[in-house]
This record gives sequence, structure tokens and C-alpha cells, in this order.
Amino acid sequence: MTDPPTDALPVTGAWLPGDPPGRRRFFTFASDRRFAVEGGRTLSDVTIAYETWGELDETASNAILICHAWTGDSHAAGRADRGHLAPGWWDGMIGPGLAIDTNRWFVVCCNVLGGCQGSTGPASPHPVDGKPYGSRFPVVTIRDMVRAQARLMPHLGIDSWHTVIGGSMGGMQVLEWGITYPRRVRGIMPIAACMQATAQQIAWGAIGRRAIRLDPRWRGGDYYDADPGDGPWEGLEIARQVAQVTFRSDNVFTDRFGRELADRSSFGDTYELWQRFEVERYLEYHGIKLVRRFDANSYLLIGKAMDLHDVARNRGSLTAAMRRITVPSLAIGISSDMLYPSYQQRQIDEILTHVGTPSHYHEIDSPHGHDAFLINLDQLAEPIAAFLDRAEPS
Amino acid sequence: MTDPPTDALPVTGAWLPGDPPGRRRFFTFASDRRFAVEGGRTLSDVTIAYETWGELDETASNAILICHAWTGDSHAAGRADRGHLAPGWWDGMIGPGLAIDTNRWFVVCCNVLGGCQGSTGPASPHPVDGKPYGSRFPVVTIRDMVRAQARLMPHLGIDSWHTVIGGSMGGMQVLEWGITYPRRVRGIMPIAACMQATAQQIAWGAIGRRAIRLDPRWRGGDYYDADPGDGPWEGLEIARQVAQVTFRSDNVFTDRFGRELADRSSFGDTYELWQRFEVERYLEYHGIKLVRRFDANSYLLIGKAMDLHDVARNRGSLTAAMRRITVPSLAIGISSDMLYPSYQQRQIDEILTHVGTPSHYHEIDSPHGHDAFLINLDQLAEPIAAFLDRAEPS
Repeated sequence: MTDPPTDALPVTGAWLPGDPPGRRRFFTFASDRRFAVEGGRTLSDVTIAYETWGELDETASNAILICHAWTGDSHAAGRADRGHLAPGWWDGMIGPGLAIDTNRWFVVCCNVLGGCQGSTGPASPHPVDGKPYGSRFPVVTIRDMVRAQARLMPHLGIDSWHTVIGGSMGGMQVLEWGITYPRRVRGIMPIAACMQATAQQIAWGAIGRRAIRLDPRWRGGDYYDADPGDGPWEGLEIARQVAQVTFRSDNVFTDRFGRELADRSSFGDTYELWQRFEVERYLEYHGIKLVRRFDANSYLLIGKAMDLHDVARNRGSLTAAMRRITVPSLAIGISSDMLYPSYQQRQIDEILTHVGTPSHYHEIDSPHGHDAFLINLDQLAEPIAAFLDRAEPS
Repeated sequence: MTDPPTDALPVTGAWLPGDPPGRRRFFTFASDRRFAVEGGRTLSDVTIAYETWGELDETASNAILICHAWTGDSHAAGRADRGHLAPGWWDGMIGPGLAIDTNRWFVVCCNVLGGCQGSTGPASPHPVDGKPYGSRFPVVTIRDMVRAQARLMPHLGIDSWHTVIGGSMGGMQVLEWGITYPRRVRGIMPIAACMQATAQQIAWGAIGRRAIRLDPRWRGGDYYDADPGDGPWEGLEIARQVAQVTFRSDNVFTDRFGRELADRSSFGDTYELWQRFEVERYLEYHGIKLVRRFDANSYLLIGKAMDLHDVARNRGSLTAAMRRITVPSLAIGISSDMLYPSYQQRQIDEILTHVGTPSHYHEIDSPHGHDAFLINLDQLAEPIAAFLDRAEPS
């Protein structure tokens, strides 16, 4: 692990029109009618970038929607290439013969509204002046993300998803899919997610946002005309570091880094304030890695969407909201998750069971913390495959 | 809870010579000889600010040393006054008839070396030019803090402490007292502390430091000549917010804040990026509160000292280090502590028991997280009083 150079950082790691598309495809809607977001503003010419794997069958009954997490995108499976800096975030899960078997299923993954990998977001050109939205982009919610994804269904010829699956923020979308579109979903699988963001989750997100705002290169969100290397990378890097610690666990950090020094040579006889332990170098490495492929404004907006996540909002109560979910559910928790502790997935199962929805809970026994949903595919594959294999009413 | 104004913030919240001393007294040493810190540099004219409660008895056998945590200071007990913005951080613990009964004990608490409440630290005038040390202040370690405190003993006429007590970073000092000065200590009580900072603890500290460094008003540590309101308060505030979340717990945040909105009126129909939930307002409030009474450079230095905390350093092994502790020990853990989890205090007890030192472990059952050592005096009073009441060999 060599420290990446910071002088070659892009102003934004967003994918922009004109960049190599990779596997992405695009669907644009609301060119005639404006798309009203929940927070009270509107968007026009909304593009959703998506990828698909496998073939839709003749009755369009084998479609599965995968929902990505905070810094994920449509590239759930496949190699890194010119269009995608990183390999698919669930590459070992989706493919021929894998748990989500693309010989059997037609798999779709969309970049979320407000994202930065092809879907309309703050780095996208504003339809009126062609300049990046920047600070003009509205706050969006998980519900807005799901409503935008739903526009894609007729375009793909899909009436209902066999299953909607996602971890973390993906799991928030899964719940909103089941509640908002009970007749367009036949099964849901929320992983390491919650029904409402807790105060602690909001706190972590808010601290990261404050770090980005503190970066003078963020410039209120209108930084896209900056010189290369002069974007708000340091704020974004710090925000990512906060998240990265909450994504893992004390045990794994101890096992992996302990008290190893990164700047070993300089630690000899004198101590200096900015000498780093190995864990600091790891966090910086991951922060810079994100800066290369993500946009600070998208990070802010998607984080805010997670804070606003509350399936009960304007629906009376949690129970009233969850009662709208009538299809089978498998909630999956991770034993060592400090960010979305497993009690939150058990609550999903309990409330669904309480309202009479067929629901199960499965727990992954992993030391890896929240990120286990990206790491422990060994433990996820079986319950996911079994849930997909369930008998459907004919 | 009204949001404090930020325009009236001091450049530094450090106590400086000329400010009202409050209860503080001062002891200065190394005016002739330089005080070499562990990291390889030296300090001259080192001042330690301290406070005392009760009377030293004729045989000087009733002295107790209290060691403070990260943002604590010598004001462990007593009111807020012109010299102390906040009341004593253990005010309900130390006093006549309290668990640490000042009718019986002579209690001492020192501001740590590198601190900002009267002891020599980065905001102090450099003895050569009278200007604040700023970036010239060396990195100090927990061992340096303890060695500086030890200089006070002959000044006060104390040969050995009956007990050294402290929570969090105070507990790190307690362990170093037992290891460095086995004949000057007759009992130790480390609370919510550890023998070595873990990778996760280092990570949290490092992220806060990065936020301070990102603040352009920090100016590499040499900001003391700034105009009022133009100090690095925003970076310090964010650093404090990171710490504040780790000091508490998910449960307490949920119970206290849930998803309450702070900027309620503006949340009506539209969502904006910087609208706040109540938990965000709470974090900002605590951040600003710290800025008023603390110095950003001290925050950096003391955080680094905690990261460097490792009782095994240059002592062969943990066991070899801990074997030097020969006096009775009571380690106290907190059930909900996510920052210094209770397994770390159990480890202290286990290793001391293993090497044959009389040791016990006691756990506080509290939802309040790490800060329970400042909150649950109800549960701490009894084990502390009982430990102080132990029979000593005559």
C-alpha cells in the first residue's frame, strides 16, 4: 500500500457526460414534466445510469433490483475498466452460477439520484445553463431515489421485481420500495439497514458534512471550475475517514493494524505531531481512493438523504408504514455492526411479523462490522440464494 | 439550550498568565535544568497548575492524586468562577463527606503538561521570546505528564500517594504512575482506560486532528496573534464532535434526541442541506462550549499523547511493564463504553492478577458510554470509597 499522490487528484471524482461509459446505460425522464422531489423542489431531464446482467425472461418475472450504498454505484458486478475505477462492489455475488445467478435472473442496478456515476446529481450539467448544478441541486430523499428508479421499470418492460436487495443505504431503498410500491415488488431483502436513521447515525453523517464544509475548496458547493488538485478533497477525505471507522470494528482494526507505525523511519528518536500510525495511513489511503471516484457534493447529499430516512414520515407511524409491506422479507444483520447494529434488522423482522407479513431474520457472524455485507459473501450467498429460490404464488 | 454565538469566540480558550487564577496554584521547575520529554526535545521553566482540597496529615500519608482526562484540568472540584469557566469535572465526587472525603484526604489534581489551563502548553509564553510556543511545543507523552506531576511531590511534602485515580486519559496516567514510580504510589485506580491505545482509538483521534489541520485558521499551529473570533474554532469544534459521539452511546442518543429537529420551523415543506436535527445542534453546542475553554493546539497534543500511550513501550512487553505495578489496583469499566470498551479494563485486572499483584475489576452498568465516569457518580462512589478505605500495611 503506497500512499497515493494528492497533487494529481481530480476536482471531482464524478463520472461526467463524455467520460467512457463502461457498462453503463442511461435512461432520461421528466424532460417534459418536472420531477418533484420530496423536499419541495423539482428536477427536469433526470437521467438514471444503470447496468444489467442476465436476460429478462418472456414473462418478465425474473427481474431483481440491487440497490447500492452511500458510495456505491450501478457497477455492482464486473471488472474495473475505463468507465469504472473500481470492480463491481458485489462482484462475487452476481454472475453466472453465483448466489445471484445471472443464468437465471435479470439483475438491474441503478446509480441513485443525486449520485455521481452517471445519474443526475450535483456534478451534472443543469439543463438550463449546462453548468454543474453545484449548490443548486436539491436535497433528495431515499424515497426520491426509489421513485426515480421506478421510472426505469416500464422502459425495461418490468411490471414487478422478483426481489429488491440492498445493504446499508441500499437496504433503506429496499424498505421504501416495499412500502411505496407494494405491487411492483414480490420480495425484499434489507441488509444491515434500518427503518429510521438514529441520532448516532445522523451524528456521524453530520460530522463528515461539517468537515467538507470546512474545506475552503468546497466553496459552498460551487467548486467545479477549480484547477485540478484544488477540489475539496481534504474535507471529503476526512468525511470518508469518519465513515470508514464506523464501517469496520475495533477487533478488525486491532488485528490488522494494532499499533504499527506507518512512518517508521521518522518515529525513531523523536515524536512529531503528524507522524502516522498504520491505521492513519489506511484511513488516508481509503479517503484519497474515494476522492478519485466520488464527488463531495454527492457525498453530502446522499449522507443527508440517509439522515432523513424514516419510513414513518407522513405515514402515521412505523407500524402503519411497515404494514404496507405485504411481500416476503428477509432482513439480514451483522453481529459486529456498530453503525447499523443488528437490533435494527431484528426490529424490521419483528414489526413485519407483528403486522402479519411473512418475514425472517438472519444474522451474519462476522468480525468485519458494517462492511461485512461487502466482505462476507461466503455467509451472505446461501441465505440470499435460498430467498431467491422461494416458491412464489402462481 | 440556546445556540451560542460564534462571533464572540476567543482565539484560544487557554488560561493565560494574567487571567484570574481561580483556585489554581502554580509550581515551576526546570528553570536551571531543562526537562527532557520522551520524544527527544526539552522544555525549560515548566509550570504545573494544580489545586488541592483537604489537609495533608502529619505523616503525609493521606494524599490522593486525581488525574484528569483529555479536556479536563486541575479543577476537579469546586464551582465555576472567574478562573474556571466550568464547575469541577468530579465535583460530586470530591468534597467533605463525599466518596473522596476531603475531611479525611488531601486531594491534588494537576493540569497536565501540554494542557491549556495553567500548566505549560502550546499557548504558554516561550521562555526565550515570551511569544506562545505554538508549533514549537514538543509532542509530549503520558509518561512526560506523569514525570512532570512527580516534580510536585517534594514541593508539597509528599513521599507517596495513598492512591492515584483517574478516568480515560487520567487512567492512562494512573497506570504510568504505578509503573514509573512503584515506590511513590500505594494504590491505583484506573477507570475506563487501557494499557495501549488501540487502532480504533488512534483512528478517532487522528480524524479529529485532521479536522483541526484543515481549518485555515489553525495556520500550522501559530494562530495566537489572530483577531478574536478568528481562531481555529471550527476545526476544534468538529474534532470535539467526533470525540463526543464516541464518549456517549447509541442508546442514550436515541433516548435523548431520537429524530427531533433543531431547526424545526425551517423543516416544514423543504429540506435543506444544513438544516439540523437536534443531535447535530447538541454536538455543535458542545463543540463551541469546548472552544471557549480549550486550546486547539493542546487538543492536538493531548490527543497525540493518548495515541502514543503504550505502557509496553521500551519495557519489553505488556507483562514486563505491568509487573512493575506492585500495589493494590482497582480497574473500573463501563458496560456501554464504545471508546474504551470494558474488555480493556478487564485486561488490566487479568494481567495484574497474572503477575501476582492484588487486583480487582468492577464494572459500572450504565447506558451513558465512556462519559459514565463523569456521570454515574452514584455507581462510582461506593467502589472508590471502599478502595480508599482498604487496610494498608503498617
